[in-house]
Amino acid sequence: MKQSMSLIPTLKETPADAEIKSHIYLLRAGFMRQNASGVYSFLPLGKRVLAKIENIVREEMDRAGAAEVLMSALQPAELWQESGRWYSYGPELMRLKDRHERDFALGATHEEMITTLVRDEIKSYKRLPLTVYQIQSKFRDEKRPRFGLLRGREFLMKDAYSFHAEASSLDDTYERMKDAYSAIFSRCGLNFRAVLADSGAIGGKDNHEFMVLSEIGEDTIAYSDSSDFAANIEMAPVIDQYEKSYEAPLELEKKETPNQKTIEEVSQFFQLDASKCIKSLLFKTGEEFVLVLVRGDHEVNDVKLNHLLDGQETELATPEEVKELLGTSIGSLGPIGVKQVKIIADHAVKYIVNGVCGANEDGYHFINVNPERDFSETEYQDIRLIQEGDPSPDSLGTIKFAKGIEVGHVFKLGTIYSEKLNAAFLDENGKSKPMIMGCYGIGVSRLVAAIAEQFSDEKGLLWPDAVAPYQIHLIAVNPKEEAQSRLADELYSQLQSLGYEVLYDDRQERPGVKFADSDLFGIPVRLTVGKQASDGIIEWKERKNGEMKEVKVEALTEELASRFKK
Amino acid sequence: MKQSMSLIPTLKETPADAEIKSHIYLLRAGFMRQNASGVYSFLPLGKRVLAKIENIVREEMDRAGAAEVLMSALQPAELWQESGRWYSYGPELMRLKDRHERDFALGATHEEMITTLVRDEIKSYKRLPLTVYQIQSKFRDEKRPRFGLLRGREFLMKDAYSFHAEASSLDDTYERMKDAYSAIFSRCGLNFRAVLADSGAIGGKDNHEFMVLSEIGEDTIAYSDSSDFAANIEMAPVIDQYEKSYEAPLELEKKETPNQKTIEEVSQFFQLDASKCIKSLLFKTGEEFVLVLVRGDHEVNDVKLNHLLDGQETELATPEEVKELLGTSIGSLGPIGVKQVKIIADHAVKYIVNGVCGANEDGYHFINVNPERDFSETEYQDIRLIQEGDPSPDSLGTIKFAKGIEVGHVFKLGTIYSEKLNAAFLDENGKSKPMIMGCYGIGVSRLVAAIAEQFSDEKGLLWPDAVAPYQIHLIAVNPKEEAQSRLADELYSQLQSLGYEVLYDDRQERPGVKFADSDLFGIPVRLTVGKQASDGIIEWKERKNGEMKEVKVEALTEELASRFKK
Repeated sequence: MKQSMSLIPTLKETPADAEIKSHIYLLRAGFMRQNASGVYSFLPLGKRVLAKIENIVREEMDRAGAAEVLMSALQPAELWQESGRWYSYGPELMRLKDRHERDFALGATHEEMITTLVRDEIKSYKRLPLTVYQIQSKFRDEKRPRFGLLRGREFLMKDAYSFHAEASSLDDTYERMKDAYSAIFSRCGLNFRAVLADSGAIGGKDNHEFMVLSEIGEDTIAYSDSSDFAANIEMAPVIDQYEKSYEAPLELEKKETPNQKTIEEVSQFFQLDASKCIKSLLFKTGEEFVLVLVRGDHEVNDVKLNHLLDGQETELATPEEVKELLGTSIGSLGPIGVKQVKIIADHAVKYIVNGVCGANEDGYHFINVNPERDFSETEYQDIRLIQEGDPSPDSLGTIKFAKGIEVGHVFKLGTIYSEKLNAAFLDENGKSKPMIMGCYGIGVSRLVAAIAEQFSDEKGLLWPDAVAPYQIHLIAVNPKEEAQSRLADELYSQLQSLGYEVLYDDRQERPGVKFADSDLFGIPVRLTVGKQASDGIIEWKERKNGEMKEVKVEALTEELASRFKK
Repeated sequence: MKQSMSLIPTLKETPADAEIKSHIYLLRAGFMRQNASGVYSFLPLGKRVLAKIENIVREEMDRAGAAEVLMSALQPAELWQESGRWYSYGPELMRLKDRHERDFALGATHEEMITTLVRDEIKSYKRLPLTVYQIQSKFRDEKRPRFGLLRGREFLMKDAYSFHAEASSLDDTYERMKDAYSAIFSRCGLNFRAVLADSGAIGGKDNHEFMVLSEIGEDTIAYSDSSDFAANIEMAPVIDQYEKSYEAPLELEKKETPNQKTIEEVSQFFQLDASKCIKSLLFKTGEEFVLVLVRGDHEVNDVKLNHLLDGQETELATPEEVKELLGTSIGSLGPIGVKQVKIIADHAVKYIVNGVCGANEDGYHFINVNPERDFSETEYQDIRLIQEGDPSPDSLGTIKFAKGIEVGHVFKLGTIYSEKLNAAFLDENGKSKPMIMGCYGIGVSRLVAAIAEQFSDEKGLLWPDAVAPYQIHLIAVNPKEEAQSRLADELYSQLQSLGYEVLYDDRQERPGVKFADSDLFGIPVRLTVGKQASDGIIEWKERKNGEMKEVKVEALTEELASRFKK
């Protein structure tokens, strides 16, 4: 397309409110504009990137055997009332009334729609399994929209839903979808991880988030430096593998420790490493209390503790409750002599030799504590947060941390929705059963930002070939010079007829403006027709590494073919 | 795709509420399902047709030099308040509040969005002209949604907007868009007309609707049987071309006509053709009255009359006003002797020889009326509705009527929106001027129905190749027979790898069900693998004309290549 005919308004300054690279550059390079908080319009360059990503998603979904549909954004409230989410979804669900005062939700997600649709059309195991997907605008009234496309209120999403007669069939589809997701994010050029995630309130066993690694990510991922293990830090198991100490156990002693309450204070007071201190915390779950022990350099993992305590809500006991139950303030809590409550300790605690813990008496601690000797009635479990440097749970390599942007999510729903919405089928024996479901989402417009976040430099964007808005940015330095404009016009026609996607800067602008815009756009190959046009020589620049070379016009198509593997 | 993996729920019965062919078949063949009144979800077959149409639209828009964007559906109310349409659009505009109680409109159309976007980014004539388009779901809360996709509340639309510094530039783009629209509808295989339409309240001179000819259309089109002339009947000019009578004028006589009031009664009373009667109607426009004359077999065209009377609102005078002004009841109105009001007559009246008209005296008419002799103070104008059999206004052929479904609309907006929304640019002399605009819409989902309406028979749909959901419907009659399923499987892989779009009915269903479904779907070529599979023979059926033939497997790819011009 000729740039003079497109709408690509670039900005020299960083717009207010734009804090992160992707947001700044997508605005500055004219890929999009904001209409309202968290609501954006895609201008021609942004729309092209979006379309590239959509096509990749569509190809991989089709390949995975999913059938494309397009459900409506307007959803009758009755469906959401039937599932209960009309009440539980909260203000994030945008709602409106039609002219007859009937309530509608604006599609934030489509579980209700697809489940009732499939319920009404499919009655037999013979028509299962079935996987459908759609690519569609979704609406969620985020409390704090921010980071541009990363957390918006209207955004493009691919959502897929699968229906099964057997759990094993869901397993197959789940794996196929995971593979398709990996293919999609790989084709987008992204550095990503499939991360084991918490299933939260919905339940469901398998649940992976696809995270694009980025320092601005809101989630922390624990991953192995030598395998593909990756998990949300709260979900990463810690294996029971610690170095054994050969130190001889000494005799337990109670010591006065005036005003020494925190692990830092106590470890400094005794000149002991924090890893030899036992951190004792009293938790309350329902009406019961439990004393939880982790090593001084470790942190309790609330998610693991919750799972261990049957998923009941768990919270720290108040100082008053601690005092009443164990007769001490929080700073001197410890396990020795405790009979009133159950003790759960992290595996690591077991390996402590001659450690320190509170004495359940204000201003006193025990030293030379040896767990199995001094408080034997203890259940050992994996209840701590994984840390950098821990062995990977698959025993391959060492754990590192990274921040991630969630771009995809695959989830085994089980029968949650099919039971609520009565989506049942008759099995081979004529018995009615709820369909088993999976759901699979990709943030398509969020991907635009995630890619921009990973691929930029100080001058602008650096699109990977597969998602670049154009392959070639052709610039006529001075279109008023006839030799230049003639050659550039010719190349524009020729390259287009060869099937290349070309943006042609035919504007009457200063060369500096054109080059700066080109760097902002991040189109992979820049071809500049300048003073050497009359000699049939143009300049080739690779945006990614800045490499420049001069190319004879006669050699151009061959070089391009080799560059773009045509 | 394998049919067993898709969601194509066919219905044997005509669903309630479905009155027209397209609605009935799109439901019965499982192309879509209704979610709420006027709100539909596209199932896999419907989504594929939609995608085909989208691609055609996109290709022709790109070719016409328009740049694709994607604006948000959520539109801040402020924009609509600025244009005034927040108040004037009425209940058709769907509205909602966000969690902060801010008002939003759901995009019914995007003039406000694009005009303010362009206003904020373009300041100079150098960046004009500009044409942008998008393909997007629109929301209009129709009072009476009906006919399935033809009048829905959520529907897919292509809307384009152009911005210009000069009127001549708008003219160019308007013509280019008209050509693009013709290309789009031709590629969809449609029988359509570009119809001159009334600009209504918005003003704007050029304004064409693209109508797909169909008996269920809500608009009447007058078109030439020998040229491409077509117009909304209210917009069709009538040329001043009538046969001259050589009858000798007789002497004017007043006759008693007791209880003869209507043209039918009077013409029967005098045994004269209605074409010799003069129909006289008193209209009121503002505070003025005008006596309007048309031939007895013609009808006054209100739109033409309005335009003639400076676009003022015009209505028939009441019987009381007629009595007061001309001293008669409506049944005896006539032009002779009238001086109190202006007389406007249709051209055809001029040619009447020895006609009849009311005498402005209850129960009396004149006979042997000769207009130029008997009421000379008369202005002759084109003020009647065109009729079938009239000469075409371009003098090529004869007018016929047809009903049409509006599928596209091109419109010169002029400066209506740019003035209201302050979208100005600086011209070559540094003078600020409002941008001149055009807008161009296509009902993309409505096209699905319009095509279905034109292409169906008593068994189901008959998609033209370019928009068919698949090219080939491959059926294994009895997949349990190994020879059949093996050959069908092979053909499925082979045809797909050759780039054909194949729907493969691999279901365990009775042959009758499969064939009936196939006819319903309307995929152009049906290939049936049946008993002759072991002899390498399959059956080929052209859905359109029902022609069947047997084809050797070895010859299949060649025959397909010739059929689909590959």
